[in-house]
Amino acid sequence: MTRLVLDVDTGIDDTLALCYLLASPEAELLGVVGTYGNVTARDSVCNNHAVLRLFGREDIPVMLGCEAPSWADLFEVDAGCARFHGSNGLGNVDPADYLDGRTDDAATDDVAIDGDADDIAGTAASMDTTVARPSVAAFRTRLTKSVGGERIDVDAAAESTALADAAAASRDGAGVRFIVDSVRAYGRDVTVVATGPLTDVDAAIRLAPDIVPHLRLVIMGGSLTQEGNCYDLICETNIFQDPEAANRVFRSGADVTMISLDVTHQCLMTRDDADLWRATGTRRGAFLADMVRFYIDANEASDPIFLAGSPLHDPLAAAVALDPTLVGLFDVNMMTETATGNGHGFRGRTIGDPTRLRDPHKTAHVALTVDAPCFTARFRDRLAGLCAA
Amino acid sequence: MTRLVLDVDTGIDDTLALCYLLASPEAELLGVVGTYGNVTARDSVCNNHAVLRLFGREDIPVMLGCEAPSWADLFEVDAGCARFHGSNGLGNVDPADYLDGRTDDAATDDVAIDGDADDIAGTAASMDTTVARPSVAAFRTRLTKSVGGERIDVDAAAESTALADAAAASRDGAGVRFIVDSVRAYGRDVTVVATGPLTDVDAAIRLAPDIVPHLRLVIMGGSLTQEGNCYDLICETNIFQDPEAANRVFRSGADVTMISLDVTHQCLMTRDDADLWRATGTRRGAFLADMVRFYIDANEASDPIFLAGSPLHDPLAAAVALDPTLVGLFDVNMMTETATGNGHGFRGRTIGDPTRLRDPHKTAHVALTVDAPCFTARFRDRLAGLCAA
Repeated sequence: MTRLVLDVDTGIDDTLALCYLLASPEAELLGVVGTYGNVTARDSVCNNHAVLRLFGREDIPVMLGCEAPSWADLFEVDAGCARFHGSNGLGNVDPADYLDGRTDDAATDDVAIDGDADDIAGTAASMDTTVARPSVAAFRTRLTKSVGGERIDVDAAAESTALADAAAASRDGAGVRFIVDSVRAYGRDVTVVATGPLTDVDAAIRLAPDIVPHLRLVIMGGSLTQEGNCYDLICETNIFQDPEAANRVFRSGADVTMISLDVTHQCLMTRDDADLWRATGTRRGAFLADMVRFYIDANEASDPIFLAGSPLHDPLAAAVALDPTLVGLFDVNMMTETATGNGHGFRGRTIGDPTRLRDPHKTAHVALTVDAPCFTARFRDRLAGLCAA
Repeated sequence: MTRLVLDVDTGIDDTLALCYLLASPEAELLGVVGTYGNVTARDSVCNNHAVLRLFGREDIPVMLGCEAPSWADLFEVDAGCARFHGSNGLGNVDPADYLDGRTDDAATDDVAIDGDADDIAGTAASMDTTVARPSVAAFRTRLTKSVGGERIDVDAAAESTALADAAAASRDGAGVRFIVDSVRAYGRDVTVVATGPLTDVDAAIRLAPDIVPHLRLVIMGGSLTQEGNCYDLICETNIFQDPEAANRVFRSGADVTMISLDVTHQCLMTRDDADLWRATGTRRGAFLADMVRFYIDANEASDPIFLAGSPLHDPLAAAVALDPTLVGLFDVNMMTETATGNGHGFRGRTIGDPTRLRDPHKTAHVALTVDAPCFTARFRDRLAGLCAA
């Protein structure tokens, strides 16, 4: 058995990663943290709840992670994420519509997708009271907002100040503390799988530096030997959201297995996979097939290389957490560049850390090769089994 | 025995690569092509002549390679190269000053460093007549000049037109034709080691596409998992000089072993190495020690990571051509980005080719790990032996 905490910005492929873990008999999923990225953190929490409900696993706790990058007060989803994941993160389909015994009319308002932070924290195993702190607006008239990693400045009006206060509280909220508590409880006998920005993991390390030597982390993020998937073709989306957090995690000394575009672009999901899930005749299968249709359409429209299939980013990270033999790992000390320009590299680029190049102790392990046929078949079949169960 | 053609922009570490081959009993060096980069192509030819003369190997032919990148009419050395290699490419020391039996006064004008193209071509084994072609100025008033890879436009005045005509002639001149002839004669039984821009190799492939399946190429150039060494920290100097040429070579289908900053920054030469060469008590040892002092000073001044030693870029490529077991190779299809901006990546960056990511046939082999202690000791000792011989 592999004990896991899953940190996701849910997201279509995040949902597939979650389903892969639900479908894997060797996985013991302790909890799911919803962070910002493909959607807002609150939408991620709602999506996690809804998916777990659809698959009959409401026993698994869902916690709210960080609501904004470490360098920003606020976060807003960018258009690119909505293009690949839909405005709700699930390809604009609603898991509630697929609950057995429901009619389409009655479905929506029955799913527990309350966005209130207290309610969300209430689902956490490790709940405690929020530390009282002054409002971020106390001394400021302007706030920093991340729009998918791009910085803009906004007025500290009442609405944005309330959101910024909530985001500040989330930095040591239920999701971050769940990561800390899990690592403290289980050490290397729990694997943290983070498939969104590394803000939550960074916050956990800053909240509890004692977890570093015990943290076993598998991330979906970055790119090392292939182009990035941001418009610049240098950065990968998750890392671009919070380069500072990623850099601190890489340089913390924590053990990081990096499942990057180097390998996820080799593991492609096809319409045949979706057809197989639909062919189970279940509503769960219909949900997955309908959801991934949006993702496949978007990938095909984005780049001709994805006419062959759509990349299984997050599911591969989940699968490697369970079975590291799926990939070939390159041991290297990594960093993330946090500024662009001469002498700086490119903000958001994941690259080897020159100051630790000759250090024989390597803390990162970057997957450069993958047994794509084995993984994609296992992924397809396990999800088919989950639908049919 | 390993049969080799060496293509160099000589350069201190190019000189060390040449000396490494001279010092290696298993190397049969067919000829040396001098190209632009660290110095002008003509200065490279002069330096090669002078070094071969000092080490008593004037039997090895020296040919003039391309005098400008494939995308430019003219080339000028940038200040950065002069900072690391000296204004003459050899750390501002003159090999002629170290010839036995010479006085310092008489030395300089005795070395065959004539820059005349006909004289240079006359040293080539495969000499033939230059094809008549119209002047590049026939229809143009402006010319494109590369200053170390940066583009500027200049007037097509008489002086620059003459240089541009010579550069145009060099694209199928003696150096390029020597590469073609060697590969046609020996196929994979000759290894082309290119430690400067890939302009000559690209020109050879364009002149004679039939050599591609038979070309065994080892390059020093690029960076894949570490930062670059141009100011932008993205590009490596050799590739930055001519990204188009590098991209065509990578995508030609030719077999390329890439010795990049990933490994050369792990192989450091120290002042102790220079002291060992000087301690041979020979003038050759004094030459090497004096020359590398400039390089070590420059590297130490450039970056604190080089306080531990100066990177042996080109010698490692030469050594791997003789002994591939020194490095661990990652098989990957490579490309070079030729434009900067959204949708393009970064001009001069070496990166995996997404269109061939899932192609099981990999044409490039990038060294990601190196047995640095083995190589640096072998390098130090072989050069000491060469000095003492």
